Amino acid sequence: MTYTPTPQDKFTFGLWTVGWQGRDPFGEATRPALDPVETVEKLAELGAYGVTFHDDDLIPFGSSDAEREAVVKRFRQALESTGMKVPMATTNLFTHPVFKDGAFTANDRDVRRYALRKTIRNIDLAVELGATTYVAWGGREGAESGAAKDVRGALDRMKEAFDLLAEYVTEQGYDLRFAIEPKPNEPRGDILLPTVGHALAFIERLERSELFGVNPEVGHEQMAGLNFPHGIAQALWADKLFHIDLNGQSGIKYDQDLRFGAGDLRSAFWLVDLLESAGYAGMRHFDFKPPRTEDFGGVWASAAGCMRNYLILKERSAAFRADPKVQQALLDSRLDQLAQPTADEAGLAGLLADKSAFEEFDVEAAAKRGMAFEQLDQLAMEHLLGA
Amino acid sequence: MTYTPTPQDKFTFGLWTVGWQGRDPFGEATRPALDPVETVEKLAELGAYGVTFHDDDLIPFGSSDAEREAVVKRFRQALESTGMKVPMATTNLFTHPVFKDGAFTANDRDVRRYALRKTIRNIDLAVELGATTYVAWGGREGAESGAAKDVRGALDRMKEAFDLLAEYVTEQGYDLRFAIEPKPNEPRGDILLPTVGHALAFIERLERSELFGVNPEVGHEQMAGLNFPHGIAQALWADKLFHIDLNGQSGIKYDQDLRFGAGDLRSAFWLVDLLESAGYAGMRHFDFKPPRTEDFGGVWASAAGCMRNYLILKERSAAFRADPKVQQALLDSRLDQLAQPTADEAGLAGLLADKSAFEEFDVEAAAKRGMAFEQLDQLAMEHLLGA
Amino acid sequence: MTYTPTPQDKFTFGLWTVGWQGRDPFGEATRPALDPVETVEKLAELGAYGVTFHDDDLIPFGSSDAEREAVVKRFRQALESTGMKVPMATTNLFTHPVFKDGAFTANDRDVRRYALRKTIRNIDLAVELGATTYVAWGGREGAESGAAKDVRGALDRMKEAFDLLAEYVTEQGYDLRFAIEPKPNEPRGDILLPTVGHALAFIERLERSELFGVNPEVGHEQMAGLNFPHGIAQALWADKLFHIDLNGQSGIKYDQDLRFGAGDLRSAFWLVDLLESAGYAGMRHFDFKPPRTEDFGGVWASAAGCMRNYLILKERSAAFRADPKVQQALLDSRLDQLAQPTADEAGLAGLLADKSAFEEFDVEAAAKRGMAFEQLDQLAMEHLLGA
Amino acid sequence: MTYTPTPQDKFTFGLWTVGWQGRDPFGEATRPALDPVETVEKLAELGAYGVTFHDDDLIPFGSSDAEREAVVKRFRQALESTGMKVPMATTNLFTHPVFKDGAFTANDRDVRRYALRKTIRNIDLAVELGATTYVAWGGREGAESGAAKDVRGALDRMKEAFDLLAEYVTEQGYDLRFAIEPKPNEPRGDILLPTVGHALAFIERLERSELFGVNPEVGHEQMAGLNFPHGIAQALWADKLFHIDLNGQSGIKYDQDLRFGAGDLRSAFWLVDLLESAGYAGMRHFDFKPPRTEDFGGVWASAAGCMRNYLILKERSAAFRADPKVQQALLDSRLDQLAQPTADEAGLAGLLADKSAFEEFDVEAAAKRGMAFEQLDQLAMEHLLGA
Repeated sequence: MTYTPTPQDKFTFGLWTVGWQGRDPFGEATRPALDPVETVEKLAELGAYGVTFHDDDLIPFGSSDAEREAVVKRFRQALESTGMKVPMATTNLFTHPVFKDGAFTANDRDVRRYALRKTIRNIDLAVELGATTYVAWGGREGAESGAAKDVRGALDRMKEAFDLLAEYVTEQGYDLRFAIEPKPNEPRGDILLPTVGHALAFIERLERSELFGVNPEVGHEQMAGLNFPHGIAQALWADKLFHIDLNGQSGIKYDQDLRFGAGDLRSAFWLVDLLESAGYAGMRHFDFKPPRTEDFGGVWASAAGCMRNYLILKERSAAFRADPKVQQALLDSRLDQLAQPTADEAGLAGLLADKSAFEEFDVEAAAKRGMAFEQLDQLAMEHLLGA
Repeated sequence: MTYTPTPQDKFTFGLWTVGWQGRDPFGEATRPALDPVETVEKLAELGAYGVTFHDDDLIPFGSSDAEREAVVKRFRQALESTGMKVPMATTNLFTHPVFKDGAFTANDRDVRRYALRKTIRNIDLAVELGATTYVAWGGREGAESGAAKDVRGALDRMKEAFDLLAEYVTEQGYDLRFAIEPKPNEPRGDILLPTVGHALAFIERLERSELFGVNPEVGHEQMAGLNFPHGIAQALWADKLFHIDLNGQSGIKYDQDLRFGAGDLRSAFWLVDLLESAGYAGMRHFDFKPPRTEDFGGVWASAAGCMRNYLILKERSAAFRADPKVQQALLDSRLDQLAQPTADEAGLAGLLADKSAFEEFDVEAAAKRGMAFEQLDQLAMEHLLGA
Repeated sequence: MTYTPTPQDKFTFGLWTVGWQGRDPFGEATRPALDPVETVEKLAELGAYGVTFHDDDLIPFGSSDAEREAVVKRFRQALESTGMKVPMATTNLFTHPVFKDGAFTANDRDVRRYALRKTIRNIDLAVELGATTYVAWGGREGAESGAAKDVRGALDRMKEAFDLLAEYVTEQGYDLRFAIEPKPNEPRGDILLPTVGHALAFIERLERSELFGVNPEVGHEQMAGLNFPHGIAQALWADKLFHIDLNGQSGIKYDQDLRFGAGDLRSAFWLVDLLESAGYAGMRHFDFKPPRTEDFGGVWASAAGCMRNYLILKERSAAFRADPKVQQALLDSRLDQLAQPTADEAGLAGLLADKSAFEEFDVEAAAKRGMAFEQLDQLAMEHLLGA
Repeated sequence: MTYTPTPQDKFTFGLWTVGWQGRDPFGEATRPALDPVETVEKLAELGAYGVTFHDDDLIPFGSSDAEREAVVKRFRQALESTGMKVPMATTNLFTHPVFKDGAFTANDRDVRRYALRKTIRNIDLAVELGATTYVAWGGREGAESGAAKDVRGALDRMKEAFDLLAEYVTEQGYDLRFAIEPKPNEPRGDILLPTVGHALAFIERLERSELFGVNPEVGHEQMAGLNFPHGIAQALWADKLFHIDLNGQSGIKYDQDLRFGAGDLRSAFWLVDLLESAGYAGMRHFDFKPPRTEDFGGVWASAAGCMRNYLILKERSAAFRADPKVQQALLDSRLDQLAQPTADEAGLAGLLADKSAFEEFDVEAAAKRGMAFEQLDQLAMEHLLGA
């Protein structure tokens, strides 16, 4: 296998990823700005399917209408000449100081109204460029101190915002769904909808909940110490995995945005195994930041590495699933029984009447059975390592 | 204020809390078993409202029917003579080795069937003793390695189990609701439904979701680094806070189950402030473990401390909310604006037509406004400290 | 008690603390730059003892010699007119992109040489302004990936750097000691000398180890989940607490730099109790960042809050230690026995010969004694809360 | 390569590892006790070099002298017949309730004396069985609440204990060195000497510090979010890596003791790369717990997995270091420059006089150089994966 990406792999990158200049809380930019057109061309060369953007990634904040038009025209030409797509777009509601207390849940009502209008404006552009997914990361929706935010009130405002956006999209007849991106903290001390679970639960209370799913990011869940594949599995189970942000993170600390495959490698393996086994049909979107130690050589190497690592892990997962020894080990661990309903056709009544289920169940004998998980996991490890 | 608890405060304790013998992963029990009757009497003396129990806390695993009956009779007498209530009960689906791979999501189908029957048996007793809430903590529903559990399949089994239990309760005409208790890990490497959010989301996919809410535990959310009051606020917002487990935890580490007020004190303050402000009408249930360094003097001192600390924090919260300086600080931080809808009666159309919301919005001026959160938080701190 | 700070309290602030403009990884500055002279005057008004600075805080990077001289002169005048001191200074070896891979341990040798010269230059100024402590925070000394840094080699370079600096200071006859500031991560994935312990251990291998101590920061140790007062106690025990950075942090996550008293309040109480009990004679230095939600009103409120909170906690600690009930509780918990040597005058031989120590020791009886820690801790909590 | 362990690989296991019965804070044992003789035989079959033990692992607590003698005799025969060695032993100072507040730092003086005698007794046996390393894990030396332990006093007691033990060993003429094992928490809320760094620093204050080194455990450092290979590098740099505990851990949470290779795989790779590159000559000691889901089939599979995974990683590391592309990448990242002293033969004076180091240094040009770490790390990843 060659591990060379092609557009069929559906790999996409945000303009802000390779375009990150390396400004961090303790240091200045280490790289100049990247022209979005160059990004499109370079990623096309590397085998990507498309790019994604925040409004301000493409059109500098405060541009005039004429500047905006010129930028969009040039960008569209680059897309056309390369065949690159824009399957997703999103709004920057966090960089400008006006959003310091949030956007859809800012205490200031005029800031909330402005945030909605800024979002709607970019939704129009997103749809115009062919996007069918609109991501919403509420990075500033949160607080550092207890009285600063009435969380129930803030959730009311968050719901109101998404209900209005869904109304807009519906009225316009747009073929666009929203993907909410959770994160536990940073840049706020605590962010609302901190995990995949909280976002999934919140969505259920929206007026047009069918238009809403999640956009989980590897590092964000790992910043809460959560098992990322488990969260993705619950999102898939709920039929709500609308998009995904792939990157790497080394445990509970600041948001690292390492290239995919860096950080927790075993988790990356199980993630690819899950996405591929589940037939996830969406984009494989990389939301990473090339470390600020790197020049552009390192930037493009890390972008290429994201895709290559996905392909290596995909190959390893396929070999793992195809291996007869693995299939036997799965039976030894009774995964086949987990797939069977617990009740039989007699349902609750049958269960209640079944003496073998309780009165005559040999608990001690059942307790003695080994689960054979270590043998199974060792096989997985060896497939991952190609050993 | 005297900080002396009375039954009106609705303080309850699990039999397993003061009854914990101090066995931990590295050490043997440091205290003898407590007689449940003594627990009831002692907690009544201290001012508690009631007690709660796992089936095996009250009736030793493997008891004969006659033993069971005798135990229940004696327990009931203690309740009657003290006036103590049993508002909640739950099932032990984790201590016996048969549950080593889980209960409702064990790979072994017969274990799942046994777990359901064990639960149903204790539901009958719970209802008989007057409980209206049934807690489900799936402490063993999880995995340490990636292939050992098919999470989507496991969620199917979890849903099946809860649907069957709700069917049973409905058929029996019981006045009983379920409260699912999330936890991220320990004793499993990763537990399914790891946070309040994941549990709230899961509930929405159940057949009789109206019978299901959550039972969040302070330490469990803090083990994922999450803001506990934020999680409780989302549960209240979703109308799903059916029960709560109060205790203390010092950050992301093993499950400590410290007495309420120990660990993150500021978070405890905001929690009490939220529960009291929101008019939460349920039990204040302490699920803690007196440290194994303690003899029974320390056990009862820590139980008394849980209640006393709640009452101190309740007093501090009331004083905070009543202080005119705080009320002004809340206005300075524009909490009143957060309570207002973002849209006005003109709705989406009005927002789109409002040039002051976007085209003519003075972003830079808005960005300059300070939020005055530090002043507000300092006031909160001083109320907390009684300074 | 009035909680009004005076210079006798030895409260100091970095220019970079109140001067932080609010630039974070996801957002632009929310506040304009503060003039160092204004900072000196304002902090003097609030009751501080002095200020501290990185070279580039005072003299913008790249200033000419004439500009430098003018800046220093104006700053010195402000110090003189206010009576404010400069007890500590430090070097900025992290903001400029040249330090992206570190300073004293950068792979590039010329960067290492430049970093040493930059440091020496500011040491001269520090001494000129009266500083007796020089802090070294190696924020960029680390790596994000495994092969990028040979850690043993990097520790050789770190030792070489500190040995050269100590040689310089000694040759110049400066009355200046170094305080190394540990941090586990951020802005690097992993930073060398990640905790107080690692820094203390490293110091022992330096040529002039007597000139080196530590400058622990509350949040840095808490980012590794460590008990901050425990770390400070070990530094005091080793006679190496040369300086301290006080601030607040809410658990294991990005570096928050909250005002002192925010974050883990109980830990702040035990820290003040320790510093005051141990007679720590150094500065109480606040290294915090007023949240970017704040305007200058919030900035100064938070600076004032840092000092006020220290004084409140100091008062609470004094009352705790003076309370006869606490003194009895300490005896009940046998703290007096901990203060006694384990051996008696007969030493090892006596211990070996003492049958009561082993052969005749009643282990079971000893095991039954309760430690009475819960009663003691509840007393501490009530003193903290002023209840 | 066959990945089949032999005694030359110096793989050792604690009796308590494969012998762990699966008792955890929420569940009873899932496996019967293992006979130490069976353990020795089985591990010899699997290719191990030796076993290690706590006194109570081999000789049940409270055994009579005759029972003790019989046990030791039988154990020694098993060692002789299999050729297995006992290179290390240690003391159980945590399981019995008498140690609930610690051993060497228990507040109760008689407990401290008892702990020392219990340790000395097992030191005699350890030496008799050929051990040259004695591990000390102070798992109960800590506290859950602030006033319960005076940390400076406790460190005095800890120093006293180790000084007495070193005096004993010296007087007896034993060829035995001590290895202190740090851990941040669990079973105590906070444990003294929480990390490798704290232990290394503490050792420097001991009377016979040359007899003391560290025994770091993978999971223990990772429970504090620390980079394990970095900690090992500092221990090696200080010439204090006397022993090592290999296992797996999935991030900051309860102590998991997974088999080596499970948990953070990338960190395991860099660890093996470091141990092998540094020529570490000591034991590769596995301190893990086969999950309680497993029967003895799983127990032995996981023990075999530990060794096999080490050998796989060793092979991958060797290939990585031998690859000319890697060697070029290391040069591209200037690791060769890191190995060079920062000063030249002209020392400090030369550095001060060198205008090219500061006055004429082109900072901006230097800042532009990329470090090429991403290319290097991608090569490492592909060697790890055998891709």
